Amino acid sequence: MLNVVLIGAGNLGFNFYREFYKNEKINLIQWYNKTLDIIKFAERNTSIIDNLKNLKHADIYIVCVKDDSIKKVITKIKFESLIVHTSGWCSIKEIYSKKRRGVFYPVNTFNKSREVSFKNVPICIEAESKKDLFILKQLSNYLKAKTYIIDSEQRKIIHLAAVFVNNFSNHLYTVSKEILDSKKITFEIFHSIIKETTNKVIEIGPEKSQTGPAKRGDNKTIEEHKEILRNKEYKDLYLIITRLIEKKYE
Amino acid sequence: MLNVVLIGAGNLGFNFYREFYKNEKINLIQWYNKTLDIIKFAERNTSIIDNLKNLKHADIYIVCVKDDSIKKVITKIKFESLIVHTSGWCSIKEIYSKKRRGVFYPVNTFNKSREVSFKNVPICIEAESKKDLFILKQLSNYLKAKTYIIDSEQRKIIHLAAVFVNNFSNHLYTVSKEILDSKKITFEIFHSIIKETTNKVIEIGPEKSQTGPAKRGDNKTIEEHKEILRNKEYKDLYLIITRLIEKKYE
Repeated sequence: MLNVVLIGAGNLGFNFYREFYKNEKINLIQWYNKTLDIIKFAERNTSIIDNLKNLKHADIYIVCVKDDSIKKVITKIKFESLIVHTSGWCSIKEIYSKKRRGVFYPVNTFNKSREVSFKNVPICIEAESKKDLFILKQLSNYLKAKTYIIDSEQRKIIHLAAVFVNNFSNHLYTVSKEILDSKKITFEIFHSIIKETTNKVIEIGPEKSQTGPAKRGDNKTIEEHKEILRNKEYKDLYLIITRLIEKKYE
Repeated sequence: MLNVVLIGAGNLGFNFYREFYKNEKINLIQWYNKTLDIIKFAERNTSIIDNLKNLKHADIYIVCVKDDSIKKVITKIKFESLIVHTSGWCSIKEIYSKKRRGVFYPVNTFNKSREVSFKNVPICIEAESKKDLFILKQLSNYLKAKTYIIDSEQRKIIHLAAVFVNNFSNHLYTVSKEILDSKKITFEIFHSIIKETTNKVIEIGPEKSQTGPAKRGDNKTIEEHKEILRNKEYKDLYLIITRLIEKKYE
């Protein structure tokens, strides 16, 4: 059993709350947010506060606030316990060096309105002693997550690569939706191919699952696509990614 | 019950064979390929041929050959039955106008080595009479697929948009894998976020599921990402997609 204080009620904070509250091995003793109203609903289940002076003692403080606020918030935690931030980008050094410090970064996309299970979600942990690393591994195990020991430099790379894998591929879905919209075709028509593509990527990796005109050097189709692609910016994007694929598989 | 002749043994042809063979409502009476060896295994279940002169009569001829070969193959079908090609790109007019012609285009990615169920796969159909449209709808229903009536011009748009949704997003996965590789981090760490992103896109659409520094106008993170992104081409790609997202959501 771990005694946990949760700090912050953003997308990740909310998902941690939902998970911690129902998890029998985690004792959520307090939840802090700078405004009480959005965590008011949790009052029946845990202590809620909007002033860090009222913090209770816990085994671990999990800080889920914006990167810019991490330093400021953590200076107000006066206990000797382990303190972790949950940022993909900030170094462990963002936490004052006299503290027992660590990082607990789940690699996923979180949303207040969408409950995400932590089961099998990769969690990157970092700490400065075996004891603290063990606590973080234990916490991750309680969530049934997958633990990866990752240092701050590697974590930055994951954060950057996640922009390509998540934000940018999502935007390509948006571009394709706009192209369909122009001829009044529903995006639903791609649900099945999206599922199949990602299943294939997970099964055999992205290089082996690459297909399409650029991969097979089909210049005729590429020229024809360029011709019907009216939007100048999307045409440029088409050419740039096509060239990258050609270069990779030539 | 539909009597079907299948022509071609590429990725789609193979998947049609597997489906038709086990489907009780479809009678696969013949399978043609220009070389017999790769369809030899099917000999016990259906007639196999490598010469179009030996074609049997059927209700429908399904042509799954490369776009360039469609015309040539179809002139050799002498029966008065419905003939369809399965190309996302070619017009229905690729088939000689004196024929009963149509298109039967499943929107998915197919692989010989990966059996794909047609259940819920969108199939775009096109024909020139109600009777033929009805036959294609029936065939699609037998496969438990989802039928969309799509004309040749719309189909070209789907084919183009599929490059963004499938080929290009897959390449972004490859780029992110290369970025991870540079710090010896396994791509496995993204399996969970890939699944979650695509589930979200299917549930709420790509615009609403857009997240990341470009979406929230977080220039500080964008600058820091640029700094650690060593590869010049990937840096350019990062900036181009970032600008597109900023423009879309400004």
